[in-house]
Amino acid sequence: MSQKLRVWAPNAQEVSVVTAAQLRHTEREPGGFFSTEPLPAGVDYFLRLDGRDLPDPRSRFQPDGVAGPSRSVADDFEWHDQQFRAPPLCAALIYELHVGTFTRDGTLSAAIKRLDHLVELGVTHVELMPLATFPGRWGWGYDGVALFATHPAYGAPDDLKRFVAACHHRGLAVLIDVVYNHLGPDGNHLAEFGPYFTTRYQTPWGSAINLDGPGSDEVRQFFIDNACAWIETYHVDGLRLDAVHALCDESAEHFLHELTMRVHGLEAKLGKPLCVIAESDQNDPRLVREPALGGFGIDAQWSDDFHHALHAALTGEQSGYYGDFGSLEHIARALNQGFVFTGQYSPFRERRHGRSLGDLSGNHLLGYLQNHDQIGNRARGERIGHLVSEGLVRIGAALVFVSPFVPMLFQGEEWGASTPFQYFTDHQNPELAEAVRRGRRDEFKAFGWEPSEVPDPQEEATFRRSQLDWSELERAPHRDLLAFYRSLATLRREHPDLRDGRRDSVQVEYDEHARWLRVTRGAITLLANLSKSRHELARPDGKLLLCHPKPPNTDSPQILVEPESCYIFVAGETFGQ
Amino acid sequence: MSQKLRVWAPNAQEVSVVTAAQLRHTEREPGGFFSTEPLPAGVDYFLRLDGRDLPDPRSRFQPDGVAGPSRSVADDFEWHDQQFRAPPLCAALIYELHVGTFTRDGTLSAAIKRLDHLVELGVTHVELMPLATFPGRWGWGYDGVALFATHPAYGAPDDLKRFVAACHHRGLAVLIDVVYNHLGPDGNHLAEFGPYFTTRYQTPWGSAINLDGPGSDEVRQFFIDNACAWIETYHVDGLRLDAVHALCDESAEHFLHELTMRVHGLEAKLGKPLCVIAESDQNDPRLVREPALGGFGIDAQWSDDFHHALHAALTGEQSGYYGDFGSLEHIARALNQGFVFTGQYSPFRERRHGRSLGDLSGNHLLGYLQNHDQIGNRARGERIGHLVSEGLVRIGAALVFVSPFVPMLFQGEEWGASTPFQYFTDHQNPELAEAVRRGRRDEFKAFGWEPSEVPDPQEEATFRRSQLDWSELERAPHRDLLAFYRSLATLRREHPDLRDGRRDSVQVEYDEHARWLRVTRGAITLLANLSKSRHELARPDGKLLLCHPKPPNTDSPQILVEPESCYIFVAGETFGQ
Repeated sequence: MSQKLRVWAPNAQEVSVVTAAQLRHTEREPGGFFSTEPLPAGVDYFLRLDGRDLPDPRSRFQPDGVAGPSRSVADDFEWHDQQFRAPPLCAALIYELHVGTFTRDGTLSAAIKRLDHLVELGVTHVELMPLATFPGRWGWGYDGVALFATHPAYGAPDDLKRFVAACHHRGLAVLIDVVYNHLGPDGNHLAEFGPYFTTRYQTPWGSAINLDGPGSDEVRQFFIDNACAWIETYHVDGLRLDAVHALCDESAEHFLHELTMRVHGLEAKLGKPLCVIAESDQNDPRLVREPALGGFGIDAQWSDDFHHALHAALTGEQSGYYGDFGSLEHIARALNQGFVFTGQYSPFRERRHGRSLGDLSGNHLLGYLQNHDQIGNRARGERIGHLVSEGLVRIGAALVFVSPFVPMLFQGEEWGASTPFQYFTDHQNPELAEAVRRGRRDEFKAFGWEPSEVPDPQEEATFRRSQLDWSELERAPHRDLLAFYRSLATLRREHPDLRDGRRDSVQVEYDEHARWLRVTRGAITLLANLSKSRHELARPDGKLLLCHPKPPNTDSPQILVEPESCYIFVAGETFGQ
Repeated sequence: MSQKLRVWAPNAQEVSVVTAAQLRHTEREPGGFFSTEPLPAGVDYFLRLDGRDLPDPRSRFQPDGVAGPSRSVADDFEWHDQQFRAPPLCAALIYELHVGTFTRDGTLSAAIKRLDHLVELGVTHVELMPLATFPGRWGWGYDGVALFATHPAYGAPDDLKRFVAACHHRGLAVLIDVVYNHLGPDGNHLAEFGPYFTTRYQTPWGSAINLDGPGSDEVRQFFIDNACAWIETYHVDGLRLDAVHALCDESAEHFLHELTMRVHGLEAKLGKPLCVIAESDQNDPRLVREPALGGFGIDAQWSDDFHHALHAALTGEQSGYYGDFGSLEHIARALNQGFVFTGQYSPFRERRHGRSLGDLSGNHLLGYLQNHDQIGNRARGERIGHLVSEGLVRIGAALVFVSPFVPMLFQGEEWGASTPFQYFTDHQNPELAEAVRRGRRDEFKAFGWEPSEVPDPQEEATFRRSQLDWSELERAPHRDLLAFYRSLATLRREHPDLRDGRRDSVQVEYDEHARWLRVTRGAITLLANLSKSRHELARPDGKLLLCHPKPPNTDSPQILVEPESCYIFVAGETFGQ
């Protein structure tokens, strides 16, 4: 087994391959490429670019991290997943998972041991937070720089293959979170190889990726090859694209369209469905509209609006972007419109925001009560259960599962994990470490936090604190919440009414003042009381399927609904309809 | 008659209106607006913004230029054009006109006296290069800063009304070139009033307009109001949007879509058709695709590809972007595809470029042999006729008129004006004047021009030299060329085959080596010989309608085609088909 090296370095005079044993010269190809005869597997090397030794931008493995040598890798893994097909998004339950904190070991191998838990929960898609090699031992992974290499602390390339194989063996699909809108600040040498960046656009993380300037064909190809590599080499079933609003491209074919078409183009070759999910701040239906209608053809995008509507209504928080949300009307709007903001003025953004989804299915949106960002970007990384009562958490979860969106959970959400998910880094560069530490403190000073109250992202304890404690699973109330989540997943699986994605068939009634909400989708009705008062409300048709904290006191047409409680009814044959 | 003043200055403490007679205080409205009681017409004023006296950003007239006071204007013009309706673009012949150089006087009033010439030529739409007030007495107008005010050297607001009325009276529609992608560097005070600019995107002219950041609703409204003001106040029939590729907007509803919808929304109110034409560097069909298919709904865009294909083939020039063109195949591709580049690699751009227009009509593109940019951005502002033989000029013109695009001429093109159209400015700021002078020299040094060979843009002679000499009209060969252009316009008017816009019905044959080209559209066939050799070619069906320099020597099936000659045949009833 061997690996051919080929690197794009249009401005380089000379590129050679440096190993412990020898110096290999490369051959210059047209278009600014340099390539070598195949390297045997398992050889550590640097690319010597005009005299400077650098890791390979397409390195498959960086055993010693971002600054160390690249290692050639064999592709001799024996796959047995030829029969596996991911279920469609309309039938999906996505589970966002951070390898470093999912288990104590923080490795892909350790994660495999917890997969049965996900299967029992009803998960269909495991979405792994970024795996590309980033600086230091731990971190969220959004500052990756070796985009083709698995983060060594998580495991070697074959460990990822084993993880995907173990998922597929259990009927679980795997999605990978990829970051194409910027590279991390440490260990990023792409600019030395070619025109990967442009100053024409500024992103929150500095210069933007050059997707439309001179040389951009190869830049786009680099990222598209990366997407295809995860799918072809590691058999993953799709991608989650980070912050696509920071991918500025004014050329006639937007990068996101090209990328999505290329990924979907692999479906015929591989004989299996693939999906592309985008995180976007734009509320722009163009992302998920079909290409024939001018869209990018992306399968689904995250709906932060639905999250914010839930979070603000449950917690009462009004700081930052939550100030745009908070009423039950926002939840109702999200359920019916997909986005809350479809062109209205957003006080937080100080401009009109978003555009109507028209008749696009709700299955083009992901709905969630929590995700890594919404937890981890808080000063102390609190989950929703650390902020509100269990009753309100269950209301939020029930709303996610009866929504017309594709539900997504964040690891540990299903049992109300007591562990936070804080912002942690392990930057080796002392100046960068200090800048991150200070930046974090300054960010939250504006919201009234004392520096000492904000966990130090560079401390190992911050990372360790964020690791799940699986022993909680055995204990009430965690065990009970898990049972509730399992029931919600079962409900969604067994009732096609909950999966049809038509937003206009979602009937929402609410009383903003009394703070109760009734959501009906076909035979299913969710009744939720967000207030601290008891209300007498009309009993929905059908049989009570799920409730918290306890069943209503009577079968009469009017029932007493407990404070911070929820009830799910299903109308069946015996109950008319 | 009076004019209400209202200004957006969200960060200002106090705004007042300063006239010679008094200081008027304004009333603060929600949203950062300040407004006054109406000011009588004809009063000169400044806005005092936190102690600084500035012209009104929405000034209707700047009689003393960009730095002088604003003058309130009466809207009491008596219109008599209620019956006028612009013809649709499929039947249009557009004429690009620069008021300052169209006549010796360089005024709108003087331009009126030449309108009959345009009517006789067959023009349907007069497109005025930018009218908004720019620094100095003369210039192209793309550095305008008082966007709602007519350039004083061209005339007062009522002079523009008289011009439009005179056009409408003669059946001519009027389009105005508007610049929304940047403001000129001198006299631009918008940033003092509000967040009109952003550093998130960089344009060739500096910071981009803030179309999607905080405060952008009002910024967008400013430009949309400007578009509507030309249409409603001055009765113009549409707009030409300058360089829309520099309008960066990542929000869900692109500014260009909103602008176009708002302009088209006026059609019902005004009871007449309006059109929006874009200049774009992107070869992106999205601009002209209908909104239901994800487009912006713009009526048409300029096709620089068609121009470059013609220019490079006729002149043999290969410098700059012409290096991407030059073969007859490019002309054929442009005629059939609309764009030459529909996703292929462009050596000039060093990346793939453009996207297929699909089945969009050719009437969504403007075709031209010359325009102000392609002439004026040459070191010495040469028209095509200064570079190639009259035979080749006629071939180029004939290709424009038999193309499936909407033909456009640049002033004086129709008689092969001997006057150039050079780059001229009249900057009052000495540093800016020197920078423009030096910038121009440096730009062309790269192409081998000595500084002394490049006309000084700041010299009055450069401007004067660029003014049309109407006495040429009486003299051969100008008179003969004019007759030829008139015949082409008549041909297009009388033969619906030439207006149907279906690109796939354009049959193009050519011999790259012998350099002849045959274009057939329905009954019409154009036969063009670009070479310096005589060729024996098959005689097209039908009657010879137009030719240069002389009719073919015979009626036999094979005819001798003269060097640098063109022939237009039309197949009629008597000639079968």
